[in-house]
Formats: sequence, structure tokens, C-alpha cells
Amino acid sequence: MRNVRVGLIGFGTIGSGVVKIFQDYGADIAEKVGINLVLKKIADLDIVSPRTAFVPQEMLTTDAREIVSDPEINIVIELMGGIEPARSLILQAINNKKHIVTANKALLAIDGDLIFRAAQECSVDIGFEASVAGTIPVIKTLREALVANRIESLLGIINGTSNYILSKMTDEHLDFATALKQAQAKGYAEADPSFDVNGTDAKHKLAILLSIAYGKKVNIDAIYCEGITKITPEDIKFAAELGYRVKLLAIAIRREGRVEARLHPTLVPANHPIARVENNYNALHIVGSSANAVFLHGEGAGMMPTASAVMSDVIDIARNISCGISGRVPSRHPDERNLAELAIVPMEDVATNYYIRFMALDRPGVLSKISGIFAKYAISIASVIQKGRMQDGSAVPLVMLTHSSRERAVCEALLEIRNLDVIAGEPMLIRIEERD
Amino acid sequence: MRNVRVGLIGFGTIGSGVVKIFQDYGADIAEKVGINLVLKKIADLDIVSPRTAFVPQEMLTTDAREIVSDPEINIVIELMGGIEPARSLILQAINNKKHIVTANKALLAIDGDLIFRAAQECSVDIGFEASVAGTIPVIKTLREALVANRIESLLGIINGTSNYILSKMTDEHLDFATALKQAQAKGYAEADPSFDVNGTDAKHKLAILLSIAYGKKVNIDAIYCEGITKITPEDIKFAAELGYRVKLLAIAIRREGRVEARLHPTLVPANHPIARVENNYNALHIVGSSANAVFLHGEGAGMMPTASAVMSDVIDIARNISCGISGRVPSRHPDERNLAELAIVPMEDVATNYYIRFMALDRPGVLSKISGIFAKYAISIASVIQKGRMQDGSAVPLVMLTHSSRERAVCEALLEIRNLDVIAGEPMLIRIEERD
Repeated sequence: MRNVRVGLIGFGTIGSGVVKIFQDYGADIAEKVGINLVLKKIADLDIVSPRTAFVPQEMLTTDAREIVSDPEINIVIELMGGIEPARSLILQAINNKKHIVTANKALLAIDGDLIFRAAQECSVDIGFEASVAGTIPVIKTLREALVANRIESLLGIINGTSNYILSKMTDEHLDFATALKQAQAKGYAEADPSFDVNGTDAKHKLAILLSIAYGKKVNIDAIYCEGITKITPEDIKFAAELGYRVKLLAIAIRREGRVEARLHPTLVPANHPIARVENNYNALHIVGSSANAVFLHGEGAGMMPTASAVMSDVIDIARNISCGISGRVPSRHPDERNLAELAIVPMEDVATNYYIRFMALDRPGVLSKISGIFAKYAISIASVIQKGRMQDGSAVPLVMLTHSSRERAVCEALLEIRNLDVIAGEPMLIRIEERD
Repeated sequence: MRNVRVGLIGFGTIGSGVVKIFQDYGADIAEKVGINLVLKKIADLDIVSPRTAFVPQEMLTTDAREIVSDPEINIVIELMGGIEPARSLILQAINNKKHIVTANKALLAIDGDLIFRAAQECSVDIGFEASVAGTIPVIKTLREALVANRIESLLGIINGTSNYILSKMTDEHLDFATALKQAQAKGYAEADPSFDVNGTDAKHKLAILLSIAYGKKVNIDAIYCEGITKITPEDIKFAAELGYRVKLLAIAIRREGRVEARLHPTLVPANHPIARVENNYNALHIVGSSANAVFLHGEGAGMMPTASAVMSDVIDIARNISCGISGRVPSRHPDERNLAELAIVPMEDVATNYYIRFMALDRPGVLSKISGIFAKYAISIASVIQKGRMQDGSAVPLVMLTHSSRERAVCEALLEIRNLDVIAGEPMLIRIEERD
């Protein structure tokens, strides 16, 4: 039986899960796949602290260069995260003809062009299933199972932390700060949760999904990105009354020659499968030109689920090594050197339905003033709900749903409306996704 | 760019969908994959009737042997269905070193041993993603994405016809016969719906899933199989009151050294993802040892969704051809010649919870008689509900839920209880699946 030797850089939580699969399940994998996977070396700055998985001291090193330059190692698993030194180590490993498996979404979203091109030039494979949605096979489904489809749309919940916070805010009527604290206490949010709650992490993952769904380079700065920090329990409650749930959605929609690519809190009809994704789960709802809607749901993070995704890539590549091939499924495109950039619809040109909440003084003529401004911008109102009445002259919530309108028009109308003397504070705008 | 030539046997609905993908999307596939797929020849007994997809007359033949013996053709797509002549044509094609893509679940479930072994001996690949759950990538997910997992359990809705009928019975309180007629009128059930409603079709698919999940031969006669024809709207209603929905579930559960493999109507908690699979949709809920729960949902049949799955196999194999390899992912196991048979737990040894409905005369002492017999067989009752009272001495429904009990004990107890003079007609027994 063919041996394939693996080196692991990063012996944290996910790394320990990977080691555990090698130890507990290596013999089963050999039986199923016909290849003997050997974990040869593990690098981490900390090789002293006890881990879930025990490994003999001689397998450990603090110098990752020992792994990327080891002539016996065929596959390097990179689980350190961050840009440097991960990028340099991966590029060195590629130059040394080692195949790569990584969960590093930030690196691939920011420096994918460099890395994918280097890999293609050196004829090595890169597996990155674990970089998006953990255990859910989103990369394999897009690149292989749905390869005969044009991807019409993608709706994704691909950040478990923010979904956990929104779920808690919905189910227990908590405000954002309290729900965040609970997420941190449960270990679902980091001490610095910025990248999760401001959308950056999900934007990186959306960029990766876009690049493989459309076989193009993706300029991440062209992806509109808005986090969940401004969402209030009141808006979640109003949304529920209107039949919606609030989710941080990664959205891609194919338009003529271009693609909408955006990441923001979104009202989703309560009966849509993506609306039912609870707590720290991830999910992807993909519409293909032939497949129609495919919905995938599972754990987007965590030691063993992510390790399962890492190992599926390791085995995919081991199968290629065993057959003496590489590049069987191109990372993004068969010709990385001449890869076009994905044309992303500018956010101001996006047309969708909107939920808008104003805090308005309860005076005669308020609605007429607001609807007059909407009319001026050709924005059609689908429904208006005023919640409660105030006798003391304080502001009450006024919720309006629009028909499909251009983002530019809506933003300009809101700028005018917020300057009305009957409006208090900032209007809240949440986009609606009605697509099946 | 490498050309890969394809022959199609069976120009019905799915075949027309495949032709449509070649025509509408061939150029996009070539761009994405770097391989030029050429549909060379189509065989069908009827080459006269108009199809959704137009093809020039010279591409058509009534003689499928022209395809399996054409030295230019690399991949044969078999979409005729049934055992013969599909089996002979596939075996001839394999002998002629052609790779196979098929949606023929009956053939693979019954004669898979013959076909997979022949393919391995002749070094050709067999793609059969379209044979189970249409557009949902269940085969790819089990064999590749979750390859580093022991499959702890599989819960599947893999027959759209019976799920459509049960959905209609649930939502519109129809009886089986009326719901079946509606399914036939909508084109979701065949004129002869036996294989769909008696569970045979789903059993074939479960056999295929078991064989790849566990890398073993599967004796389909060892799979317990019970259809939906006896389900009544009353039982669906009682189930709903108890918080369950009735689904025809394909179930596989790993036990020490063996696997439970059964296909029967099942009460599923209403909040389980599989309980929410509506109408003609299919879904698979897979629990892997590391991945935990992965849920996949999509269209299990229909022209374009099934054609999408067929084409994903064609492209998978074309990628292998382009790399000059075969057998990269074994059909079931790297060594088909020495494949063991899956040990399936005999149904009488299965332990699960049960829903049992009796029609009992409303007389004092009925419950004591019934519960006395259950006690004798060590069956523990979780709850009892008597629905309504009858003054005229006719029977009323008495619903009991058991704790986990052995099938053998439950069946023996029911044999005794049905002979009680206070019991009218046959008891209804539906198994409950409480697994997360």
C-alpha cells in the first residue's frame, strides 16, 4: 500500500482534531481508500502544553521550516491562520513541490491569486474545504457536484459566531452586547470578536466561494460588507411579526455578465431553509441552473468537524499522489495566469426589497412627508406599520417595507428623511431577500 | 484542449436534460474544467418523437450496441433503467474499456457486485451519483467529503413520490388513495406506483448508500422494508399532536460490528430537519464520527436536477481520462474481489421507540389488559392517549408510545393483544426515530 506522508503546521484545537483522526481512524481510512497516511511531523511554537491528542516528543518541532523542507513530506497542512508567516511557509512548501491543505480563509481571500498561481506553476494541489463552513462540503459541491451548473445564486450563513448571537437575540430577546457576552462565555466568540461581528470573516469566505463558483479572481474590496453590531432586538421582533428572521447572509446573485456580491444582515422569510439555521450552525443555499435549489447544513467550526474537512482534502490529494497526478480539479480555473476578475455589481446599483425603521414623532403629516420623499425617488412602499402611540411627544417606531428599489435611491431618500424635524435618530435599514 | 467523447443510451426525460446541458452549457464547462465534452451518439428505441432538446438525426440510433462498441466513445451514459438490457449493455461497454455513468439504482442494488467488480477488473470508472437523491451530492459526500468519518447514522428521504403523498396526507388530511391520485395527476407518481409506495425504490437506494458508506457488499433482502400504503390520516394527526411527523425514512445506524438497515414509515420529531422535508424533495441527514450532523436537501428527481447529477459524474470521469487515470475513488472498496458482506442487524433484534395505535372497545379494564401484556414482554410504556369516547360500544383509538423496546418483543406482544376481545382490527405500529 502506498504511503503518503503529511506534516502539520499549527497544533491548536483543529490541529489536535486532525491528529486524533490520524490516530483513531488511520487504519479505517487505509482500508477504505487503499492509501496509508502517515503523520510525520508537527510544528507549533508551543510544543509543551498538553493537547487532546498525545504525540511523541520527537514528532514535534518549533520550527515549521523543518516541515516545508522535509523531502519525505508530500502534504503540508497549514492550520496556524493569519497572513504571515503562513503565507511564506505555504509558498516555500509549494516551491518544494509539497501539496497544501489549509483552513486559512483570510490568506486565501487576500492572497489567493499569489498562492493559487504558484501552486499551478509548481503542479501541486491546494485543498481548502475547511476554510469555508467547516464540515459542510461547500467547495466540493460547487467545484464538482454542481460543476455542470451556472450558479444563479448563493445564500450563505458562513459565520457561526454572528449566527449564534442573532439566534440568541431572536430567541431570548437579548440586545447585541448581552448576546455577544454569552457567545464569548460559551466559547463561540473570541475575546476580540471584531472580524466575526463586523462581517470580515464571512466576507473572506464569500470571496473564496465567489472565486470557485465563477472561476474568477475576486477583489474583496468590491464586496459590500456590513456586520450585525447595529441590529436591535426591536428590529428582530418587528421582522418576526412580518414573517421574517434576521440573518447575516453572504449573498451572490448572477446578473447579466456580473454578480451581486454582498454580506449584510438580511430579512429572510421564516419558512426559507436558511431562516431555520440556528445557533452556531452554518448553511449554504445554492441555486444552480440545472440542479435548482440545493441546501447544505452543518457545523461551521469546532475541533472535529473542521478536522473532518481538513482530512477530506488530505485524502483527496493523497488519491492524486497515489495516481501520480495533480491539478485534476483546478483550484479556481485551469489557467491561473490569465484569470479574469469577477465583475461585481456596485452596491448602489443593487435592487432589492428593504425593511426601514424610523423613530418618528407621532404627529399628523409624518407619513405624508416620508412617503412624499420616497415617491420623489420612485421607491414604492409595500407596507407601513406604526408601532404604538406616544402621548408625550416622544418618537415611535415606524416600519416600512419597500418593493424592489435601487440601493442608491433608498440611501438618498433616507438622507433626506433623516433631516426631517419629525424624525429622531438614525433610520435602520435592513435588506430583504425574497428569492426562493 | 482534450476531447472526451460521450455516448448516451436512453433519450427520455433525463436523457433530454443531459443533451440540453451539453448544448446550453458545453462551452462554459470547457472553460471551467479545461476539457471539451463531445456528445457523439444517442440510442433509444424511439428516435422519432420530438424531445425538449433537438439533435440532428445522424446522432441518433435505435441500436445501443453502436454506442458500447464505438472505439471513439470514452464514456457511456446509461439512462434506460431496468435490469435488462441495461446490465448487458453496461457489461459490454465495460469490457470495451468505456467508463459508465448511470442513474440505474435497481441494477446497482441488485447486480452491483457483478458490475463494480467488472469495472475494477477493466480499470474503468462508474459514476452513479444520479442513482440516489437526484441533484443532492450524496455519493460524493459519503465517499469523499466524509471519507475520514465513521458513518454513525444515515436518515434519508430518498423517494420523492412517497414523500409527496405523505406531505399531502399531512397538510390536506387526505387518505392514501386520494393523495396517490393527486401525485399521479401531478406527474410525481407513475401509473404503476408500486415500487415507490411499497418502499422498493427507496430500499434499492439505501442499499447503494450502505455499500459506499461502509465499503461492503449489501444483501438487499436483509434490509427491512415497509411502504406507506397502510398509513392513515388519523395516525398522521395523532403523530402531529404528539410532536411528530410521519416520513418514509431510509435508516442506517452503526452498531458494534453491524449496521441497522431499514426502510419504513417513521415518526420524526417535528423540529428535526428531516421532518421539514416537504413534497417531492429528498434529503439526507448524515452523522459522521468527526463531522457530526450534515444535512443535505434538494430535488431527488426531475429532468434537469437529475441531468445535473449525471453530468457531474461525466465531468468527474472526464477529469480522470484527461489525467490518464481511473479508479481514483473506488466504487465501493479498493479490492472488489475480496469484498465482505455488510452484517445487518436482523429486524427482530432492532430496538427503538414505537407508536402503536389500537382500536379498542371503550370498556373498563382494556388498558389493564393491554398494559399487562406489554409488561409481560418487558415493554415500557412512555405515554397513553385515548382519543374520544364512544357510547355505542364501537371502538375508539388508543395510542401508546413505548420506550426503547426490541422489535421481537413488540411484535409478539401485538400478536397477543390483537386477539383480545376488546381489540378491533389490526393494531397500527410505526417506529419512532428520536436520534438527533
